[in-house]
Amino acid sequence: MQNFWGPSGWYSAAVVVPCWLQPSPELGIGFVGVSIAFGLTVLTAAYAVGHISGGHFNPAVSLGLWAGGRFEAKELLPYIVAQVLGAVVAAWILYLIVQGQAGFSGTGGFASNGFGELSPGQYSLVSALIIEIVLTAFFLIIILGATDQRAPAGFAPIAIGLALTLIHLISIPVTNTSVNPARSTGVAFFAETAALSQLWLFWVAPMIGAVIGAVIYKVVGKKD
Amino acid sequence: MQNFWGPSGWYSAAVVVPCWLQPSPELGIGFVGVSIAFGLTVLTAAYAVGHISGGHFNPAVSLGLWAGGRFEAKELLPYIVAQVLGAVVAAWILYLIVQGQAGFSGTGGFASNGFGELSPGQYSLVSALIIEIVLTAFFLIIILGATDQRAPAGFAPIAIGLALTLIHLISIPVTNTSVNPARSTGVAFFAETAALSQLWLFWVAPMIGAVIGAVIYKVVGKKD
Amino acid sequence: MQNFWGPSGWYSAAVVVPCWLQPSPELGIGFVGVSIAFGLTVLTAAYAVGHISGGHFNPAVSLGLWAGGRFEAKELLPYIVAQVLGAVVAAWILYLIVQGQAGFSGTGGFASNGFGELSPGQYSLVSALIIEIVLTAFFLIIILGATDQRAPAGFAPIAIGLALTLIHLISIPVTNTSVNPARSTGVAFFAETAALSQLWLFWVAPMIGAVIGAVIYKVVGKKD
Amino acid sequence: MQNFWGPSGWYSAAVVVPCWLQPSPELGIGFVGVSIAFGLTVLTAAYAVGHISGGHFNPAVSLGLWAGGRFEAKELLPYIVAQVLGAVVAAWILYLIVQGQAGFSGTGGFASNGFGELSPGQYSLVSALIIEIVLTAFFLIIILGATDQRAPAGFAPIAIGLALTLIHLISIPVTNTSVNPARSTGVAFFAETAALSQLWLFWVAPMIGAVIGAVIYKVVGKKD
Repeated sequence: MQNFWGPSGWYSAAVVVPCWLQPSPELGIGFVGVSIAFGLTVLTAAYAVGHISGGHFNPAVSLGLWAGGRFEAKELLPYIVAQVLGAVVAAWILYLIVQGQAGFSGTGGFASNGFGELSPGQYSLVSALIIEIVLTAFFLIIILGATDQRAPAGFAPIAIGLALTLIHLISIPVTNTSVNPARSTGVAFFAETAALSQLWLFWVAPMIGAVIGAVIYKVVGKKD
Repeated sequence: MQNFWGPSGWYSAAVVVPCWLQPSPELGIGFVGVSIAFGLTVLTAAYAVGHISGGHFNPAVSLGLWAGGRFEAKELLPYIVAQVLGAVVAAWILYLIVQGQAGFSGTGGFASNGFGELSPGQYSLVSALIIEIVLTAFFLIIILGATDQRAPAGFAPIAIGLALTLIHLISIPVTNTSVNPARSTGVAFFAETAALSQLWLFWVAPMIGAVIGAVIYKVVGKKD
Repeated sequence: MQNFWGPSGWYSAAVVVPCWLQPSPELGIGFVGVSIAFGLTVLTAAYAVGHISGGHFNPAVSLGLWAGGRFEAKELLPYIVAQVLGAVVAAWILYLIVQGQAGFSGTGGFASNGFGELSPGQYSLVSALIIEIVLTAFFLIIILGATDQRAPAGFAPIAIGLALTLIHLISIPVTNTSVNPARSTGVAFFAETAALSQLWLFWVAPMIGAVIGAVIYKVVGKKD
Repeated sequence: MQNFWGPSGWYSAAVVVPCWLQPSPELGIGFVGVSIAFGLTVLTAAYAVGHISGGHFNPAVSLGLWAGGRFEAKELLPYIVAQVLGAVVAAWILYLIVQGQAGFSGTGGFASNGFGELSPGQYSLVSALIIEIVLTAFFLIIILGATDQRAPAGFAPIAIGLALTLIHLISIPVTNTSVNPARSTGVAFFAETAALSQLWLFWVAPMIGAVIGAVIYKVVGKKD
């Protein structure tokens, strides 16, 4: 079983690595660069360990795969534990690296997720709820569809990874983009803002959205 | 039959989602980011539901597929209705989210399409007609070619999605890029500009271009 | 035979379309956007008509394929004629569209290629010769390698299209990137600069580079 | 045997080519452009010569493949020699081209790697060590996973090339991104800074990281 959730832990770490790349006027990669980075993390990780663990590094995705009938209930807890632990370790490694910068003066938001005053574009709690639910639902539809036996084989990591890029392009201004509770949790511990107090939303909304997406795909995608 | 046009409705929603990401100096993703977002919407959606509905979320594409002999006439109307409804629902969800921004002061153009004073680069009606016809024609040639039985299997969503990215890179300055009447319609209802009064062009030009592209492919691509 | 070189003409047009997207501070897509646009033109066109004409829209590529033993000599002339005609037609369509912009005051360089004073970064004739030869040589190595029977089937358009993106990322500052004499010729007719007087280099250098690349691949890639 | 390490030398040249594209406010492509360029070099090169030489252009990757049981020890030295020679030749070609720019006033850093004062973001030696080790380890996990017989065939160059893009998006601010000792060596000879005196780190850290990644993959990825 170590084979199953082991890589998910390692790769949840990978998923968080790019988070610290906050857009900065001098050395930044901008929102497009951050969006590409998140997507490529999943694209490359899914090709690397998809054949070992299934390649999901996101508690909401694991839950949605279970709701969609593709994942066993008894695997849910160990996967989610590994995903969160991996994300915390990754954020800690980032913290080590960032501390080595000349003139380091604190982690700031550390790329955490938020709404209201912690939203990059000052969007409300309701806006954050809607967008995280809607985008996680579409994320699960894409995951379940691209890994459907009727879809062309081998392309799923491209579709799923680039879906995450798309999701970031859409929602960075609203919530800094979660759709992944593990990613939100890892960095929240190291942020100097009140990110931890808003963390609940980035567990609740993606989990709800994932189940909705799975149900939609089951209805729409069932064989005639 | 719900299986056939259902997903097209859901995904027309997806197609519109990125529209609101208008380039802004502070939180924007720029024209390149918007172009990537539109392309990835179709790329990911085609892998997700291509095996269910054929994966077209665009009335001009459905018409062109019919003109190219790949789609039944009786399916045209339900598909187009679903595509337009999906786009309107998506624009409405965006409207809800945008309203939650602190200091919200109106939707502005809401990423609608336009010419003349409503063109991002102040291009004329004639320029808009030419570019929408030419680019939709090329779009259909790529769609019909990449889904041709002689083309390598499984790659069509990559070719088609990235073609839409290419089309946006070329024509955002001219018309804000339509080539999809459903996408134009959904946001026009929520724009504060005169976008609705120019909507006709973004039905007429893509439809003409799609038929031209389909005819070209039939002539050029016919088996020896 | 019309089937063979017909699409190459149509698509040489497509290849030129993005050229007019010159980086501008207000409505531009930047060098990265232009690089992506050129690459996607070839990627999408190769999936669209690769099974009809072979999918080459570039006289240097056609020559290199002949030098590499993959293309018949008698097809060279009609292909090159179609490629150049397509490029001129495309540039003319662009010219029509650009004229419709409010305050249009001339075509300027019209994204033509150049060296010395016509180089974006003021690079010399020698620098232009070296980079166009070297990059076209690598382009042909990638084309011959990715379409080799030993390479994985179906992926060649991705490799070749993204190679053109890479080439643009490298060489826009030097020559505005040619590696394609047809692309250089089409826009040179409409430029207001002395682009036509420098056009010879963008025929000579890519043609030399293509043959060098083909010879290298024949030597290195021959079966044991 | 010439077939085996020959292309690796040629392509190490290609790997260095984009290095000189340093972000500049006027003609630059930014960090995102540089990241895409490095990734596409490996993506296209792997499709071009993967079937000839295995397609590795990086001493750390060759070492990691040996540690992972995929490469013979006796091939290591000739491959590494070819990779370094190729990188030096490529840097020399760049040097020739750059000299042809009007007002050329020296090579500056020539896109070399560094830490402390030579780090783009002024990161310390320890930060540089950590990030080069961690990212090279993930790079090898992706390479070994994507080329595993259980992974979908043909997609490895996409996963591996885009992993290099991801790595650059993450680490350009820290070390200007190496993970490839050959790439670091080629440009260090032409830099006007003290890059040569820091070159040891960009051999030591990637080599350590590569072996760590290979060992992790052997443990996690072993068949049940």
